[in-house]
Amino acid sequence: MRLRQKRIHYDVVFYEVYDQERDFLQHMLPRHIKARYVPQTIQECHDNYPLSSLISIRTQSRIPLSWAKNLSGILARTQGYDHLAAYQQKVQSHIACGYLGPYCSRAVAEHAIMSMMLLWRQAKKQIRHFNTFLRDGLMGQNCSCRRALVVGVGHIGSQIVDMARGLRMEVRGVDIQKRLKNLQYVFLKKGILWADVVFCALPLTDQTNKMLNYATLKYLKKGALFINISRGEISPIQDLKRLLSQKILGGLSLDVYEQESLLADYLRGHSKKKNRVIKTILSLKDRDNVLLTPHNAFNTEQALRQKTAMTVGSVVSFLKTKKFPYPVRIL
Amino acid sequence: MRLRQKRIHYDVVFYEVYDQERDFLQHMLPRHIKARYVPQTIQECHDNYPLSSLISIRTQSRIPLSWAKNLSGILARTQGYDHLAAYQQKVQSHIACGYLGPYCSRAVAEHAIMSMMLLWRQAKKQIRHFNTFLRDGLMGQNCSCRRALVVGVGHIGSQIVDMARGLRMEVRGVDIQKRLKNLQYVFLKKGILWADVVFCALPLTDQTNKMLNYATLKYLKKGALFINISRGEISPIQDLKRLLSQKILGGLSLDVYEQESLLADYLRGHSKKKNRVIKTILSLKDRDNVLLTPHNAFNTEQALRQKTAMTVGSVVSFLKTKKFPYPVRIL
Repeated sequence: MRLRQKRIHYDVVFYEVYDQERDFLQHMLPRHIKARYVPQTIQECHDNYPLSSLISIRTQSRIPLSWAKNLSGILARTQGYDHLAAYQQKVQSHIACGYLGPYCSRAVAEHAIMSMMLLWRQAKKQIRHFNTFLRDGLMGQNCSCRRALVVGVGHIGSQIVDMARGLRMEVRGVDIQKRLKNLQYVFLKKGILWADVVFCALPLTDQTNKMLNYATLKYLKKGALFINISRGEISPIQDLKRLLSQKILGGLSLDVYEQESLLADYLRGHSKKKNRVIKTILSLKDRDNVLLTPHNAFNTEQALRQKTAMTVGSVVSFLKTKKFPYPVRIL
Repeated sequence: MRLRQKRIHYDVVFYEVYDQERDFLQHMLPRHIKARYVPQTIQECHDNYPLSSLISIRTQSRIPLSWAKNLSGILARTQGYDHLAAYQQKVQSHIACGYLGPYCSRAVAEHAIMSMMLLWRQAKKQIRHFNTFLRDGLMGQNCSCRRALVVGVGHIGSQIVDMARGLRMEVRGVDIQKRLKNLQYVFLKKGILWADVVFCALPLTDQTNKMLNYATLKYLKKGALFINISRGEISPIQDLKRLLSQKILGGLSLDVYEQESLLADYLRGHSKKKNRVIKTILSLKDRDNVLLTPHNAFNTEQALRQKTAMTVGSVVSFLKTKKFPYPVRIL
């Protein structure tokens, strides 16, 4: 079996490809390119060595350090690339790493807005209460006239700003770069004191790691919402749980998680290791004021079409020139 | 027990008052007004005669015809008044009937927009899939650039128009009165052919009864959404089920129902009568592409504050002048 696998040569191996993405890729990739599609992570499919010198992952595969010598390119099919930068730094080799341009900003931003409405209107409870047709304890909150703080006003954050305004909310932003001319930017602490809902749309860097922790968010108004659609590490789950139990947070929506690859391994049944972070996340999932989704904010038809086009473009470009259109800068 | 009840005189009896509404009413009603608060419908609390000549209901109490001779005023704590008009016509008496001005248009419109996003993003399925962290079959749809048809562009409909535009959707309206200057109004059939999502925000009248039936909605694009937040009778449930099974409808959100008072009686356990309409509604409730909520779209803190102020104003005005600020016109 291993011998047979060794003989097969692929131009590219895609890991973490779900059904619909594979359909789109197969449809758009030029026929001469030999591709292998694997729904699992590298860990889950137990590959001992790379079956192609070009591999493509999403966020949950951890690329073995031993693979470095056999790889010439790694493409992350994501807008974030912190995991590739970390790998590059560890292996200290000049493997070309690429990521995708903004393909799903709108989808992610819409997911964030949906999450806010769903929490303010207690949608989980409303659905359950249909069974008794009783409305006690179902009172929600309007969006209009309420205050949205968008932390990180890049591709995604600026779309959140746009939609929150469309819902007639007051909006302020936090960012070191002030790209939107008509937006009032504030210091983080001032924004936290002011907001009814905080959206985290920051990239993960050394500076943003644990930035929205207990010490920062404890200044929120009682009952405010916190919504994270960027990276779990920016806001430690223990801190969020504490803010919920102190009723400082009135609602929490997460699409991303601390130690997300461990969490995914556990939930998919590939590992039984349940550490404190995973236990804390799971303890929150059935609460009416908590919405947990499986890193799925990006996943719309419109975004997937754009993503597939960018993936195909990146693979074709790399196979021809050994360069990616969106290269990860070596840190 | 009956004797004791007979001796008690109330200035007003409020039926169908849920917890939070009672708290707000007790806080705002002048102290000299003697009020009775009943969480149930008239049917559920088995009152044989009215305990005050002024009663107030929502939508689910059916006022017995025999009560007419003892009533001088009926206040519906709703924006719709079709049920009071029907009662007036049946009893042919000059009981003053009142309803409330627009107090919850924004809340209802926001619920409609939330429902659309929730359906397009498969939120019910996303929540369930967190347990396995798998994304197969979770692909959703963006709102932006898609087409919203608002049928009935009154207080609620015009807020839906405003928010759908805020989400960067294309919007058209259907209404006999063309109140919004910057909105493109179309004929119903033309709009149905064009739309990706149809919002029903019509009042219930003889003309609108069963208006959005199978014969009309069958022209929808495959996979379109239908969202009804006004009155169930406008869109028969059998027709909606048929459209779902034919995959013409890709998603359905209802906050209102045909024979809603029977449905509520059944779900609250006060009646075991399960007719065909109720059976059909219940057969849909656990589908991922169906969102059923218990006539709760109005229920936000902001709306409840406005509603309570209007209720108190109407009661005070009636007790003093025998007139309601928003009288039901005798048909």
